[in-house]
Amino acid sequence: MKIALDAMGGDFGPSVTVAGAVEAVHAFHLDVILTGDEKQIRQEMENLHYKGDRITVVHCPEIIENSDKPSTALRKKKNSSLVVAMQMVKDGKADAIISAGNTGALLAGGLFIIGRIKGIARPALAVPFPTPKGISLLIDAGANADCKPQHLYEFALMGSLYMEAIAGKEVPKVCLANVGIEEGKGNELVKESYTLLKNSDLPFQGNVEARDIPAGTADVIVCDGFTGNIILKLFEGVAHTFSDSLKAAILSDWKSKLGGLMIKPALKSFKKQFDYTEHGGVPFLGVNGLLIKAHGSSNAKAIKNAMKQAKISYEADLTNKIVHRIDEIRIAEKPNSEEYSDDHPAGDES
Amino acid sequence: MKIALDAMGGDFGPSVTVAGAVEAVHAFHLDVILTGDEKQIRQEMENLHYKGDRITVVHCPEIIENSDKPSTALRKKKNSSLVVAMQMVKDGKADAIISAGNTGALLAGGLFIIGRIKGIARPALAVPFPTPKGISLLIDAGANADCKPQHLYEFALMGSLYMEAIAGKEVPKVCLANVGIEEGKGNELVKESYTLLKNSDLPFQGNVEARDIPAGTADVIVCDGFTGNIILKLFEGVAHTFSDSLKAAILSDWKSKLGGLMIKPALKSFKKQFDYTEHGGVPFLGVNGLLIKAHGSSNAKAIKNAMKQAKISYEADLTNKIVHRIDEIRIAEKPNSEEYSDDHPAGDES
Repeated sequence: MKIALDAMGGDFGPSVTVAGAVEAVHAFHLDVILTGDEKQIRQEMENLHYKGDRITVVHCPEIIENSDKPSTALRKKKNSSLVVAMQMVKDGKADAIISAGNTGALLAGGLFIIGRIKGIARPALAVPFPTPKGISLLIDAGANADCKPQHLYEFALMGSLYMEAIAGKEVPKVCLANVGIEEGKGNELVKESYTLLKNSDLPFQGNVEARDIPAGTADVIVCDGFTGNIILKLFEGVAHTFSDSLKAAILSDWKSKLGGLMIKPALKSFKKQFDYTEHGGVPFLGVNGLLIKAHGSSNAKAIKNAMKQAKISYEADLTNKIVHRIDEIRIAEKPNSEEYSDDHPAGDES
Repeated sequence: MKIALDAMGGDFGPSVTVAGAVEAVHAFHLDVILTGDEKQIRQEMENLHYKGDRITVVHCPEIIENSDKPSTALRKKKNSSLVVAMQMVKDGKADAIISAGNTGALLAGGLFIIGRIKGIARPALAVPFPTPKGISLLIDAGANADCKPQHLYEFALMGSLYMEAIAGKEVPKVCLANVGIEEGKGNELVKESYTLLKNSDLPFQGNVEARDIPAGTADVIVCDGFTGNIILKLFEGVAHTFSDSLKAAILSDWKSKLGGLMIKPALKSFKKQFDYTEHGGVPFLGVNGLLIKAHGSSNAKAIKNAMKQAKISYEADLTNKIVHRIDEIRIAEKPNSEEYSDDHPAGDES
């Protein structure tokens, strides 16, 4: 397998992306194409004493910055590390692309360079997150701020295929994120989506309340990208505030400090349970190719794990499974009367 | 001050509401009217040896159950503990109503029995929640699932008046819950609301990302009721899962167990910081009277604290402050061209 990695993306650029690539090459036996500033990349490879032949470098003089407007950047920076890596997937020269860079540009590139799977109007960010019961999947986590019921149906379909193919769940529990579990709860979007999902042949299990999401009650949590992004970031925020407050409480007196030292290993395993770097990347499902977004603040370990994700998705043939399932559905019946829409969203995730 | 308390509301009914009332009467020097089954209430009062004259009982033979449809229940159960307590506020016989019962019926009663403040199209649930920087206010936390920008403007207005009057914030930081901090981020509702708020004379500070909400970055977090309910319940859910996982980690071996014992007092103060029962009730702002919703699973302490909240809001003259501010705005200018709408939402909070 060959992965195109945008070496310039993310808060730390080549200093972490190259290290992540080197670790991944050793650990997972895959080939990596690094796109970006060749001089910087070669320097990092030298620092890491990498002398193998599984990493190739394609020099790209341009970088898409976080401050760049996605659509303009794609058009004007054709020689950027991101666009060149994208184009490789489109041209079949790479099997997947990974970037920790400008999310909006990444999503727009997925739509306009690689292109959508036929029958999917709105590709979506699918975030696997840890729960005490294993991995749950949140979809859409931020690609589409305003959605229609048909889009949520597509998210549910792609999410359930992901959990089948990647997490080995034979019949994943697909639920709508909602304010109550009863049918008829929620806003207009969710109420209409409920009816659509109930009448589909997806393994739909009704609504899940936000308070039950962290416990792993649902395998696939379906929502519009605005709600999904709020859920994802609040999760991060509460975790952060809690661990800060816990630390402050432990440091408040000598007895607690001593106790804190004694529970340190336990706390470490607890923190690991909620560590996103363990899971790496976020696939942009519905794109006709493997596109994995890594967190902007990714370290080398997170980049390496994003590559692991790409490899697992590649070996599970995830993209083709979505293509085939959509084909089957299109032949059998249309899930509702809405026509396949050609509207294209802007990347709203930040 | 006289508070009408729906003694039959909540998961535990008179066994906690009466105890909460007795404690509040002693602590805060107020009068309470308990509505509900007189026999049960008197029995609880006897168990608690309450012999004072600050609690009166009004017998109501009917109860609105959680399974009752709000609008039907209000119409058919005129002699229920909830409707009778509501009517007392409407008739000026009580200064506030508190209930831990059926939320939908409580919200509907606020709209149709007590009535809205003139100029407020959509009353909203305003949830004060603890952060390391003090109290923040989330509005709307679940009364209105589908909103228009004008509604979010009203929530911002009421929320800022609440934080001024109750939390003593002279210029509260009012923010829109959003997926990014930049203007132009978010769904259509939030983008339009941003423009409306920016051009208003409210202390609007732009967007707040969900990851910054728990840290107390914003004083007033403005959102539609669907998003607000998701935020509120996810907060609860993450807190719950975290403390469960932390407990499991601490109990995993003897050294951690011993350490856990030593940090117990620190953990207790940490938990208290995030304990909703410390804050009690949730006001339904925009109703022409004080209406406080207590959590369904409230214990006596939570009921007592809801009464404290009612007293503070009463003494701060909160309802009249909203009435006067709306009057001033209506005289000076209309914030946008949308007419005062007479549409009435159903209670969507669960």
